[in-house]
Amino acid sequence: MLRQSTPADVIEYPNAYVYIVDMPGLKKDQMKVHMEYNTLVVSGERKSEREKEKEVKEGIKYIRMERRLEKYLKKFVLPENVNPEKISAVYQDGVLTVTVEKKPRPEPKKLRSIEVQVA
Amino acid sequence: MLRQSTPADVIEYPNAYVYIVDMPGLKKDQMKVHMEYNTLVVSGERKSEREKEKEVKEGIKYIRMERRLEKYLKKFVLPENVNPEKISAVYQDGVLTVTVEKKPRPEPKKLRSIEVQVA
Repeated sequence: MLRQSTPADVIEYPNAYVYIVDMPGLKKDQMKVHMEYNTLVVSGERKSEREKEKEVKEGIKYIRMERRLEKYLKKFVLPENVNPEKISAVYQDGVLTVTVEKKPRPEPKKLRSIEVQVA
Repeated sequence: MLRQSTPADVIEYPNAYVYIVDMPGLKKDQMKVHMEYNTLVVSGERKSEREKEKEVKEGIKYIRMERRLEKYLKKFVLPENVNPEKISAVYQDGVLTVTVEKKPRPEPKKLRSIEVQVA
């Protein structure tokens, strides 16, 4: 069983960071997105070596087997200005997209004018 | 623009050969399956460098960019015992599966007994 890296893009938008990970061939229950302290962990596992072995026993012949990556694992340390409660994840066409919202910026301190008293 | 190889499995079933190719992140109109003589050609192209450049201009910042594979291309020389008219392709979860049926086996020649005449 291989645990290998898969390519990812990280994009900064004005209000969020977006983590895009190639993870082809997964079903919903085969992938997991969770937080470990300040680190976003994305993982997934597809058809195992054992399942393939079972197929071979049933008379199915693997002529070429390059898709050996069965376990995906990707970790991203999140920047400080994100809200770890506001994370959403979407899987489409073998690509997992995780969006982490930024914390709203603190209100800029208003300039306060002090009226000058003329004596 | 990169044109790189993507992993594939080739499996032989009793009645067909199956070609499984990881091609995450494609829409239907971004992929193509065709025959060049006896070769099955599978190709696809996803978001181009140009589109990404446009995004960058619009204030979107690429912090990490590992998903540089934008063009997929995979070629398979088909065995002689297939029927190139019977090819079907399905794309699901970023994985393209092409099934090529085998030609039906010729009917085994029936043994013909010649009756021995006893003189």
